[in-house]
Amino acid sequence: MIADKMKGMVANSSAIRAMFEEGNRLASLYGAENVYDFSLGNPNVPAPEAVKKAIVELVEGEDPIALHGYTNSNSGYPEVRQAVADSLNERFGTSFGERNIIMTVGAAGGLNVIFKTLLNPGDEVIAFAPYFGEYRSYTNNYDGVLVEISPDTETFQPRLQEFEQKITPKTKAVIVNTPNNPTGVVYSEATIQKMAAIMEAKQKEYGTDIYLISDEPYRELVYDGAEVPYLTKYYDNTIVGYSYSKSLSLPGERIGYLVIPDEVTDSEEVQSAANVATRILGFVNAPTLQQKVVAKCLNEKTDISFYNRNREALYEGLKECGFTCIKPEGAFYLFVKSPIEDEKEFCAAAKKYNILMVPGSSFACPGYVRLAYCVAHETIVNSLPKFKELAKEYF
Amino acid sequence: MIADKMKGMVANSSAIRAMFEEGNRLASLYGAENVYDFSLGNPNVPAPEAVKKAIVELVEGEDPIALHGYTNSNSGYPEVRQAVADSLNERFGTSFGERNIIMTVGAAGGLNVIFKTLLNPGDEVIAFAPYFGEYRSYTNNYDGVLVEISPDTETFQPRLQEFEQKITPKTKAVIVNTPNNPTGVVYSEATIQKMAAIMEAKQKEYGTDIYLISDEPYRELVYDGAEVPYLTKYYDNTIVGYSYSKSLSLPGERIGYLVIPDEVTDSEEVQSAANVATRILGFVNAPTLQQKVVAKCLNEKTDISFYNRNREALYEGLKECGFTCIKPEGAFYLFVKSPIEDEKEFCAAAKKYNILMVPGSSFACPGYVRLAYCVAHETIVNSLPKFKELAKEYF
Repeated sequence: MIADKMKGMVANSSAIRAMFEEGNRLASLYGAENVYDFSLGNPNVPAPEAVKKAIVELVEGEDPIALHGYTNSNSGYPEVRQAVADSLNERFGTSFGERNIIMTVGAAGGLNVIFKTLLNPGDEVIAFAPYFGEYRSYTNNYDGVLVEISPDTETFQPRLQEFEQKITPKTKAVIVNTPNNPTGVVYSEATIQKMAAIMEAKQKEYGTDIYLISDEPYRELVYDGAEVPYLTKYYDNTIVGYSYSKSLSLPGERIGYLVIPDEVTDSEEVQSAANVATRILGFVNAPTLQQKVVAKCLNEKTDISFYNRNREALYEGLKECGFTCIKPEGAFYLFVKSPIEDEKEFCAAAKKYNILMVPGSSFACPGYVRLAYCVAHETIVNSLPKFKELAKEYF
Repeated sequence: MIADKMKGMVANSSAIRAMFEEGNRLASLYGAENVYDFSLGNPNVPAPEAVKKAIVELVEGEDPIALHGYTNSNSGYPEVRQAVADSLNERFGTSFGERNIIMTVGAAGGLNVIFKTLLNPGDEVIAFAPYFGEYRSYTNNYDGVLVEISPDTETFQPRLQEFEQKITPKTKAVIVNTPNNPTGVVYSEATIQKMAAIMEAKQKEYGTDIYLISDEPYRELVYDGAEVPYLTKYYDNTIVGYSYSKSLSLPGERIGYLVIPDEVTDSEEVQSAANVATRILGFVNAPTLQQKVVAKCLNEKTDISFYNRNREALYEGLKECGFTCIKPEGAFYLFVKSPIEDEKEFCAAAKKYNILMVPGSSFACPGYVRLAYCVAHETIVNSLPKFKELAKEYF
């Protein structure tokens, strides 16, 4: 007797669980080292030593009542919010204060908070395919309607003409994710400028507010010196969702933040509402110990060379096998063209070689598969002969 | 341009923030030691030493990739869920397994997960006044309708006759909170048995499932050997929401669990849906370090003698002043009858003596005020002369 809205979700989720169980089954049959599981975005780089040091210092040095208590504001500790603001200002030349930062239960928590804050039933949220499939669930949670922009499979940059056409008076938000999951593509400054101009014009035309929501868990994961523009500088109604899941390898700890700049229309009201949404959605506050940990680790960096080595090895290896894919500039995913139209069938074929990957349909982009290369380097090295065998079935 | 649903919430919340700011203002004027803030349920007993020990052991002994990574299941680590199940089985003679436990972001997170799982728009959730005001928000989040049972201000036990009359074919859930916030009352076994019988009969009459949701953050906080019945043993469709916020003084860390027993109708479907709801609401999983911490601290107890000393001092002190209230058997709240009808006016009068308390209207029970006695003992001792002065205005 579960809610009607949940019924389809449970059916979908069973498919993902089935894959997970398949991975476990394969591991028990062939040994975990002989299964090449590229399905999950769970970082394989340990959290920096500074995280451990911060945790120990905090629990040994701070009053446990204050350290583990509710924060007075649902938006987090004032000193943590200020430290995050200062760090952003230093890096990006912004001028945020404590009031602009809301500590959240990861980026997923932050996106739910901001959708709860903004969306009326029927409001449209635009996403550019391929996109992280959860955006659809987050939008549905608040009875919003996800509007898809079709993928440009040449460049995986957003199709701006289609974007312009699909903005309506019901468009409340546009969500971008750069560096992108699942393609690893970074949107260029020129792209962002054009996107901002389109949105400005549409706001004027319709007399509405259209929020640009920048989902940035992969901001620090870029290669070859790629620049990721800070979007609040290009468009006033920008809200940023950030997570330390990837940058500090803390995905299980659920810690991130939202930035709601003063330039956002009715910014005080939006900030207050996001504070309330944090409370009533049951987050109450971002985990307190981890709030203080990240404040102590703002200058820490994950080992990007680890991911880069994996990126090069997998990209070059797959290319050699005859597969085609765009070389990622960021994140830790490769989005590979399926050699056959039905990429689910391709995934099934790969499973025969103990290779697990996610069908592009999960990202609104069938005909492709996603490989998460945040795995042990040996997994990649050992998987390549298997990919070679797999390739022989097609090329 | 925030969502319509959020507008009233923000207005309400400003009232609470105003109280918080008033507390800060008073503290800066008169010194924090001269402000008697009974407004917040933030424990003043430190987390047990074992919590600190567990945290240090975990970060020093475990692989950080596993310790801080996503859990494979959104419901939490299998070994943690099994440990929680084992502990409950030992204490209450239940027979839960790993599958019955879903680790949550506190009890507030757990209640949101279960309401998301169960409620269709228009479904009714019954709550017994006085109740924790957030129940209304949690219900509204999923377009449910909160149905109130009026308070029995003699005993603060649930009015079962009114309850029976208000169950309709739209009733999807009944939420109970015992030991109770704000009264400290514990529902007796006889009460629970009668409540269960009524619900069984109504399920049969309407051919529906009516879930009993037991919100139990105060389960371990009982005095004078009071017994708190474990509700799954009295009624099959019972779901328990638990939090370590009060029992281990970890409210800021957001760690708790749901119990979904096999006896619940369609239990597997409900468990799967709650797993999915955990993911799509953005919790993703309960914070991983804290999951492992609580598993190591299942036999730890908070210092109940601290709260008991406060309870006795405040209860006796207020009685002596002429105030009347029911003596709490659990939790850390006193629910005091306002000497005047408008308890908000009474709260305003108390503020003149630097005493902060929460109006009963926030708990759907006007004419009363809530005092949280989870404060330093000196706060209570020093407040009593002020309460005496306050009392003189009325008696």
